[in-house]
Amino acid sequence: MTTEPSLSEGLATTRAIRRYTSEPVGEAVLAKVLHLASRAPSGSNRQPFRFVVLRDGPVSLRVRTLLAEGAEEIWTAKRATNEFPDRAKDSPTSRMLVAMDHYVANLAEAPVIVLPCMIRYREPTVTEGASIYPAVQNLLLGARAVGLGGAITMFHQVRDSEIRQALAIPDEAFIAATVTLGYPAGANGPVRRKPLDQLVFEEAWERAPAWAVDPPGTRFTGGPRPA
Amino acid sequence: MTTEPSLSEGLATTRAIRRYTSEPVGEAVLAKVLHLASRAPSGSNRQPFRFVVLRDGPVSLRVRTLLAEGAEEIWTAKRATNEFPDRAKDSPTSRMLVAMDHYVANLAEAPVIVLPCMIRYREPTVTEGASIYPAVQNLLLGARAVGLGGAITMFHQVRDSEIRQALAIPDEAFIAATVTLGYPAGANGPVRRKPLDQLVFEEAWERAPAWAVDPPGTRFTGGPRPA
Repeated sequence: MTTEPSLSEGLATTRAIRRYTSEPVGEAVLAKVLHLASRAPSGSNRQPFRFVVLRDGPVSLRVRTLLAEGAEEIWTAKRATNEFPDRAKDSPTSRMLVAMDHYVANLAEAPVIVLPCMIRYREPTVTEGASIYPAVQNLLLGARAVGLGGAITMFHQVRDSEIRQALAIPDEAFIAATVTLGYPAGANGPVRRKPLDQLVFEEAWERAPAWAVDPPGTRFTGGPRPA
Repeated sequence: MTTEPSLSEGLATTRAIRRYTSEPVGEAVLAKVLHLASRAPSGSNRQPFRFVVLRDGPVSLRVRTLLAEGAEEIWTAKRATNEFPDRAKDSPTSRMLVAMDHYVANLAEAPVIVLPCMIRYREPTVTEGASIYPAVQNLLLGARAVGLGGAITMFHQVRDSEIRQALAIPDEAFIAATVTLGYPAGANGPVRRKPLDQLVFEEAWERAPAWAVDPPGTRFTGGPRPA
């Protein structure tokens, strides 16, 4: 049992975890993670977020199979686009491809899968995600807080109608993500992002303020490094 | 200076903060909060999130005025709908109304305002928010980690084109939220949400599993309480 990180350490180091041990996730642990997810904000605090949990019931097993089919279909297509040019052995990209192959092949057996859903109360808008994805992020961070790891995928999308039917998800709700959870197998790699001066602007688009600097030791991905 | 909370405590207790002291937010503090925001996940780690920071530059002041106008317009309209029935003095609703009136009246003077934006790389989809709102939630949690408080609003929406023009936000990007930040004035109230058995389902929609129970002492909002 590792010590729980501080809030800032948790935010700085939570990353997608796609390999899990076979250790089952207990009900009290799951309840705690979902409680933390439900603390997220939503428009006018309407709380339109719902969490459909897939464990080992017969409907859950059926939906797991549909998700695994969807994962295989989406990942095979994505692999075929050759949008991953950096194939040097042991590069971040090659490690990601190996991890994704393993993840997709084992998706049906993920210890827990959560389908966060949002109940719509009006026509879709560009900002409706503001009432569901903060809760999805809290779900991943809450998982980290109890020692679990997780990953967001959209593997439900190619089996959406079959999954909705199996779980009796009503028309006014949509599945916002497929989140796998489990105890991490192996070590976590670092979180890599673009340098802050590519992401933070002041007074005008693409005008990075001088103070927009990451802490020492930050590791970056893509694009030019800051001077 | 209060001690930073643990990850789970931070998730459980971060709530909308709408009253700020006049203490300015330093650049190093802002950089840390935005660094934590940028650690959020996004689809294929494309990182389409950008953060336009409004402090006291001439363009920022102009945009602050536009946001305050938008806030006034939106809040006046919302107030007029009478969708807040619980008017007992000192009820949660009446306290929220007072807090919102104060927030709207003082919006232009919020210590810092951040406009998280998302750069689209394809046509809008129902799940595109998955690549921006986790970062918005990290922004609020990161603020909490350094002792700031914040709130998400959509007050830009009625002045969207003027704000985009002032900041030269390109067509392919959209403003996802208006987030105010500052040092909290006064005490934080509790986070209130629906009980977990209204939010968590297993095997079928609206079928709450027996284990979906909030921790002792949780305070709830709306709907029937669990037995």
